[in-house]
Amino acid sequence: MITLLTDFGVADYFVAAVKGVILSLAPEARIVDLTHEIPAQDVEAGAFTLGACYRDFPPGTIHLAVVDPGVGSARRAIVVAASGSFFVGPDNGIFSHVYAREAGVRVFHAAREEFFRRPVSATFHGRDVFAPLAAWLSRGLAPEALGAEITDYARLDMPRPTADPARETVAGAIIHVDRFGNCVTNLTPAELPPGTTGRLTVNDHEVTHLGTHFAEADRGGGLFAYLGSAGYWEIGLWCASAAKQLDARRGTRVCLSNLRLDISNTPCD
Amino acid sequence: MITLLTDFGVADYFVAAVKGVILSLAPEARIVDLTHEIPAQDVEAGAFTLGACYRDFPPGTIHLAVVDPGVGSARRAIVVAASGSFFVGPDNGIFSHVYAREAGVRVFHAAREEFFRRPVSATFHGRDVFAPLAAWLSRGLAPEALGAEITDYARLDMPRPTADPARETVAGAIIHVDRFGNCVTNLTPAELPPGTTGRLTVNDHEVTHLGTHFAEADRGGGLFAYLGSAGYWEIGLWCASAAKQLDARRGTRVCLSNLRLDISNTPCD
Amino acid sequence: MITLLTDFGVADYFVAAVKGVILSLAPEARIVDLTHEIPAQDVEAGAFTLGACYRDFPPGTIHLAVVDPGVGSARRAIVVAASGSFFVGPDNGIFSHVYAREAGVRVFHAAREEFFRRPVSATFHGRDVFAPLAAWLSRGLAPEALGAEITDYARLDMPRPTADPARETVAGAIIHVDRFGNCVTNLTPAELPPGTTGRLTVNDHEVTHLGTHFAEADRGGGLFAYLGSAGYWEIGLWCASAAKQLDARRGTRVCLSNLRLDISNTPCD
Repeated sequence: MITLLTDFGVADYFVAAVKGVILSLAPEARIVDLTHEIPAQDVEAGAFTLGACYRDFPPGTIHLAVVDPGVGSARRAIVVAASGSFFVGPDNGIFSHVYAREAGVRVFHAAREEFFRRPVSATFHGRDVFAPLAAWLSRGLAPEALGAEITDYARLDMPRPTADPARETVAGAIIHVDRFGNCVTNLTPAELPPGTTGRLTVNDHEVTHLGTHFAEADRGGGLFAYLGSAGYWEIGLWCASAAKQLDARRGTRVCLSNLRLDISNTPCD
Repeated sequence: MITLLTDFGVADYFVAAVKGVILSLAPEARIVDLTHEIPAQDVEAGAFTLGACYRDFPPGTIHLAVVDPGVGSARRAIVVAASGSFFVGPDNGIFSHVYAREAGVRVFHAAREEFFRRPVSATFHGRDVFAPLAAWLSRGLAPEALGAEITDYARLDMPRPTADPARETVAGAIIHVDRFGNCVTNLTPAELPPGTTGRLTVNDHEVTHLGTHFAEADRGGGLFAYLGSAGYWEIGLWCASAAKQLDARRGTRVCLSNLRLDISNTPCD
Repeated sequence: MITLLTDFGVADYFVAAVKGVILSLAPEARIVDLTHEIPAQDVEAGAFTLGACYRDFPPGTIHLAVVDPGVGSARRAIVVAASGSFFVGPDNGIFSHVYAREAGVRVFHAAREEFFRRPVSATFHGRDVFAPLAAWLSRGLAPEALGAEITDYARLDMPRPTADPARETVAGAIIHVDRFGNCVTNLTPAELPPGTTGRLTVNDHEVTHLGTHFAEADRGGGLFAYLGSAGYWEIGLWCASAAKQLDARRGTRVCLSNLRLDISNTPCD
């Protein structure tokens, strides 16, 4: 099974060509589209989206991820072996969430051109490099056969929540905004257990309504936070864009305070 | 075979997660995307779209339909057995067109949590409840094994054409507007046989050009009606939106009159 | 294996119905979506997109292509056998790139209605005519069995580059604009070998930066040309629409001049 995640969109022939190359080399492969609507060249969004769903696939799945602003430059093609599955794509950090979650990750620089589609175009490594690599893996080729193991692979800088024990606050950040404008933070149940109280401050907006799902949200229009399906607290707004109301984007700071009923502390600096 | 119909869009990880869960439980399942572009939380549009194509699939197909504004609330998860096929989704009326067309429909409240993905999130029952149910059905589990049969399942209020024999008119309604702005009415060949004359009145606009296909439409810009592929009369406008010109939306009334050449009667009240 | 290329979009039930019909007749068929986002009724765009990727699929693939402004009129349904693969669609030129590239093409008028879905609607031959034809081919039926061979099939007028040896220029044209605004010309390495110099003139704009990939493009905002993955020279603009800047569209003329370092000739008339 081979999954596809790209920023190609579905209007042009790009996704079709990738599928054709895979199926020419590995006619038995099962191809599953994750999404082709990652914003153009947005490696962080691709990394988040893959990170939010790869664990739902069975072991042995090959995840092909192509968000590749550096196509044609010297950036490396890599194959990652982690947790019994494989990941194929450019070495630009797109697998950072995999690196962060899995132990025993091994990364290989796929440099052996005899496994590529020939000739290799300068603009379309999805078709000419990554699709053939995924096809060869699905036919049972070991990642070791594709190139040498490396340890200096690229990782995205992913902000982690930082607790300030003295002030009893946690400084977090928004790590993703989905198409509805819901803001995914990097805060998890470790920082904010469900069922407790708390206050999230974003750009001077305060969110104190912590719910568990949209259906119990304040339909009067207020902001609310809920534990989202990717395992992070998210900030939403009923039938509207929380990102717009908060003037927030990826990287915007989120401060968690008032975690105990008996304190009313000052937000993070 | 499992089909998917949702309002998730294809930009986020939601569809991918549903597919991953299904394929983890039922690696042999064949997944077919119907559409993921149902307007957000528009149960009526989901019901219409499923109703327009489910009969084209072979018996035994499992149709997973998730348009679920009530996710996380007390609304039930259901499995429907009808006409040799299965339907899995929330009990909010999304299968109303199936209920209306099929005899011997049986509906089960899928309440046995041992068949769900654990833990069940509050926001994503598509992944955590409905995908596993579809996977278990595809593995041969009987719907009876998933929960008790119920009869008080939710049905959408679907308007039916109403004939006024005295005035020789039929009062109908628009039940769907497609992405091109074509307006699908609830009038069928039973009310307006192809080849006959007639007049459709919508918001003071009169449509008397009854064609059989777009290619013979009035390319000068006029409105025309044609028997659409879902079995209903539709109102279109060559290369433009009939809905906009008619100021029509779902629920807008349509009056059918002048069904005979020798009368020129007054439209419905 | 059956591929699908249409202008249906993915929001309505149209693609789903096509898949259901195929899978009802040929349950073992593997369906691969090429794209459903061809601009509505744009046969040229459909022809280009199919032409850019069909060769990446394995022999024996059946390509179903439905961009069909003439649905319901007298235009014929055809089946094309070329290069060991099959093509099914309306006879409106959508397979013109196949005709231009492949030798020994045979075209059949698929007129035998016993292979259609009954009744045939006037508006949806994708479901009622072309999907069943593709399914029957995938089950092994020979194209000869579907109808008589024809030679008067429709071809699009596809502009070819025209060299003017006296002036040492080549007159070309833009044949496609992709969703990013990149302009695909009909110039190939035969007219402009990679590594040489040259000047492309489009609507009084001059492009002299000939690169091989986006990553080396002038990020300062200038136009540049590169050999695209479909085998044609394209004109792009870093993170912006070249088509907008050039005021160019399909059919816009492109003049290639200054192919040698020692000349600085005048562009095509």
